[in-house]
Amino acid sequence: MSALTIAGSDCSGGAGIQADLKTFTAHGCYGSSAVTALVAENTVGVQGVHPTPPEFLRQQILSVLTDIPVQAIKTGMLFDASLTRIVVETLRSHYGGSEKMPPLVCDPVCVATSGDSLLNPDATDVLIKELFPLAALITPNKSEAELLLSQGATSYPTIQTLDDMLTALTSLLSFGCGAVLLKGGHLVSTSGEVHAFAASRADVVSVQYDGCPLGENMEILQIGKQLDTMQVVVDMFQDRQSANVTLFVRPRIESESTHGTGCTLSAAIASGLALGRPMKQAVREAAVYTHLGIETATPLGKGHGPLNHMHTISQRILPVRTASNPTPFTRTLIQDNLDVWKAYVEHDFTVQLAQGTLPREKFLHFVKQDYHYLKYYARAYGLLAAKSTTFSAIGSATQTILNVLFEIKNHTAFCASFGITQADLESTEESPACTAYGAFLLDIGMQGDRPKLLMALLACLLGYGEVGLWITKLAKTNQRSFIVEGNPYRHWIEDYAGKEYQEAVRLGLELIEQVAADDPPSKARYEEWCAVWRRCAALEKGFWDMAMTEA
Amino acid sequence: MSALTIAGSDCSGGAGIQADLKTFTAHGCYGSSAVTALVAENTVGVQGVHPTPPEFLRQQILSVLTDIPVQAIKTGMLFDASLTRIVVETLRSHYGGSEKMPPLVCDPVCVATSGDSLLNPDATDVLIKELFPLAALITPNKSEAELLLSQGATSYPTIQTLDDMLTALTSLLSFGCGAVLLKGGHLVSTSGEVHAFAASRADVVSVQYDGCPLGENMEILQIGKQLDTMQVVVDMFQDRQSANVTLFVRPRIESESTHGTGCTLSAAIASGLALGRPMKQAVREAAVYTHLGIETATPLGKGHGPLNHMHTISQRILPVRTASNPTPFTRTLIQDNLDVWKAYVEHDFTVQLAQGTLPREKFLHFVKQDYHYLKYYARAYGLLAAKSTTFSAIGSATQTILNVLFEIKNHTAFCASFGITQADLESTEESPACTAYGAFLLDIGMQGDRPKLLMALLACLLGYGEVGLWITKLAKTNQRSFIVEGNPYRHWIEDYAGKEYQEAVRLGLELIEQVAADDPPSKARYEEWCAVWRRCAALEKGFWDMAMTEA
Repeated sequence: MSALTIAGSDCSGGAGIQADLKTFTAHGCYGSSAVTALVAENTVGVQGVHPTPPEFLRQQILSVLTDIPVQAIKTGMLFDASLTRIVVETLRSHYGGSEKMPPLVCDPVCVATSGDSLLNPDATDVLIKELFPLAALITPNKSEAELLLSQGATSYPTIQTLDDMLTALTSLLSFGCGAVLLKGGHLVSTSGEVHAFAASRADVVSVQYDGCPLGENMEILQIGKQLDTMQVVVDMFQDRQSANVTLFVRPRIESESTHGTGCTLSAAIASGLALGRPMKQAVREAAVYTHLGIETATPLGKGHGPLNHMHTISQRILPVRTASNPTPFTRTLIQDNLDVWKAYVEHDFTVQLAQGTLPREKFLHFVKQDYHYLKYYARAYGLLAAKSTTFSAIGSATQTILNVLFEIKNHTAFCASFGITQADLESTEESPACTAYGAFLLDIGMQGDRPKLLMALLACLLGYGEVGLWITKLAKTNQRSFIVEGNPYRHWIEDYAGKEYQEAVRLGLELIEQVAADDPPSKARYEEWCAVWRRCAALEKGFWDMAMTEA
Repeated sequence: MSALTIAGSDCSGGAGIQADLKTFTAHGCYGSSAVTALVAENTVGVQGVHPTPPEFLRQQILSVLTDIPVQAIKTGMLFDASLTRIVVETLRSHYGGSEKMPPLVCDPVCVATSGDSLLNPDATDVLIKELFPLAALITPNKSEAELLLSQGATSYPTIQTLDDMLTALTSLLSFGCGAVLLKGGHLVSTSGEVHAFAASRADVVSVQYDGCPLGENMEILQIGKQLDTMQVVVDMFQDRQSANVTLFVRPRIESESTHGTGCTLSAAIASGLALGRPMKQAVREAAVYTHLGIETATPLGKGHGPLNHMHTISQRILPVRTASNPTPFTRTLIQDNLDVWKAYVEHDFTVQLAQGTLPREKFLHFVKQDYHYLKYYARAYGLLAAKSTTFSAIGSATQTILNVLFEIKNHTAFCASFGITQADLESTEESPACTAYGAFLLDIGMQGDRPKLLMALLACLLGYGEVGLWITKLAKTNQRSFIVEGNPYRHWIEDYAGKEYQEAVRLGLELIEQVAADDPPSKARYEEWCAVWRRCAALEKGFWDMAMTEA
């Protein structure tokens, strides 16, 4: 989705195309921009304006529109009559009529938050007569509405009350735009007044409370609030199709961070429209976005600071999944915990096993404890099945249990070849390292959800796969004296490096990558997963320590 | 954190200050921008350039620097000698020396991706002699490096190989900048070549693989990849303090979405520096960011389309918690599921109870089943304790069990006042509606994690609190004939609207708001929570249906 802003450039970044581009980005919308004037300004005021030559403004608009599909357009500061006229002409001739245009949100910027004038008087007439009829929405604030309505009529009364706003709204709508949002940020009302006003005009007025403890069926959220005397901001909205007027009401915030409020609001509406929202929904969501932008802003600069445009977005913890990196989650998990992963995979036990020098009794001790471990492992997959909510997930967990039961047969046969009977296996006392690891899996299975248990179970699956491939790779060039051919443990190495086991690894990888992609973890959740992964890697290392020290 | 870009304006939004501002925003960094020239361009080419008067460029830079603290600066297209010189002068005089400047990343933009020239030849000399010595880093690509190195030396050999790059890197460093990143995007290498090159220059060269299946201890992620012949991109990095050269290596991507690659990379580095990362880490992360920006881009426009600047961010599902809206999660949860919430809270049972007209036997049936329900409810809090990993969470779950056990005493006394004995309560057959709700709580407790179980448990706590307050509020003005005084169920209403119960509600709200704020849910996870919440609200409604129909 893509939106174009036609507005001034605010070098300080809080208003103009800068605010618009930040707002588009925060809404996931691609932004382009035609600059009407460079404005040297900051939070204190305007230090200079360098208007763009009208023909170059036309060129910018056409460079965008002839190449990039645009689903919404907004205009901000247009500065003077000639630039305003160029915008009208360019849009009209490019689209060949307003009905073929994407929705145009016109913010009739006249004065900066700092009080500096941003529109030459000669432009107002062009704005009203030529641009407004192209606009799907205009978004004047109190003083802009007063200025616009004073054209023609020599003395328009100032807008002071909700009744004044309602009168002004109707007059503004008569300029021929699709809808009007009259912003009441410069008026003071209480929710009691809004309630009384809405009741007195119940024939046309409906009220929408947002981002505040007001609202239906939410008594529990309103305890201790003086609802009637609470100061609120009221924006009034009406479109040409309907006699109904909507009041968007939210709590007033005391804040100096209001530089670029109007730009941000109209850009947020344009984003909503570009994303396909109906006008009223786009307006409502944009009002909340802007409100929170003010409330969550960190003061910046010496005057009226900028809004926080980024409160609706958060940093992804994991890179997105792409063709060149199809396993971003596992890669990050391994990389972020490389110390424990290395200590596990490249353990003395695996190194001596790869060299064929591992004492037989150490290997046998390991194999006997592994028999006990596999019982825990199978039971943990039982818990995984119990925690699954789709037949496919239940099936995949169950299949792993069946695989373990099958593996146990091989295991027993393999042990028999070393002279260890089934009875020996069963009667071997369980080592604490085995109990620790096994019971930890069951604890995670009880404590957390399915993804968390998967993290625990996959440390074993993936680690043994890595050991198998690592040994095989090094053995090819006889690095570190690793051998496969002629190694007494060749069978074990080939099992884990083999096609069948690696297919299980592939499925396991696919499973956790899918989980992490479908339900991207927050920072806290990723850290929880890391903690589980680290514990399991450490318990795996402990398991091999046990083989090396106990036997 | 805040960063300033001094660069051209690309109306099509893919390069220039537009790419920079998007990149800053995607990194959570506040962006400001001084425009050196308006460029009318798109994905096909450059249609026109309107340079900024040098004095106005100075004014923009000063408007920013005199008001807004800036932790990193980047320069992009500087267009000609006079603009380049103004940048140097303004930064020098504002900071009074390069050592007091925030780090400056200089992207020596000479040519657009489309092939159009973006720097007048007279500017190169100023760039090298005056701007580079101020720069913490310069980021030329192959052709920019060739151009820069051909100054003075009349014929500099072209850069073709990794060895050429290494030679060029050293020469570039001698221009006096703090570090050089020589970008190899226009060269073709294989990972085998990189490996051989790194081995041959192991004295100075180290290699960093990123965003690709290359890397240590990750054999399981590399299966099926032809690693030696894989085409890669190599960027070379060296800083003045060290003889070591780092190669940043990642897979080459075939893509037309490369408009603004250089701008994006240097802006991402500036973001990293503004956020306090060391230079090498900032460069590495920026290279990955840019790489994924290309790989995840959606084609846009007829030529070289823009990168996806937004791949590192995601939309927050819930509004942030603020003073004006301290319960954004619960508010959203109720609002998004208003149908089931209303059906639960404003049930016939509660309405008739509030009116004092509820038949006694229906109330008694409810109370008897509630006795059974509370057993499930207490047990579910037992599971919650078992799923908690801090003493404070274990304690809070346990306290609720103690509260229920205490409530049961009241419950029994209350029932006795209606002539129901403890034995009656125990022997009452459990209704399916009670079993359904109770067993569902235990199922969620087994199936999911602590937050999910909290969602299930709080539907009951919050709903009864809402019923109590709602009845009390309406009764104040005798709406819907609700009464408290003289109501046979007055005791019940006052219990749930009362201070003690509402304090439990407050604690419950605080708990889930904290959970949602500390571990913000993904869309999938929020939907899971909603599903649990909806089920519980429906089961609550079912509980009251039971009272109305069975008794």
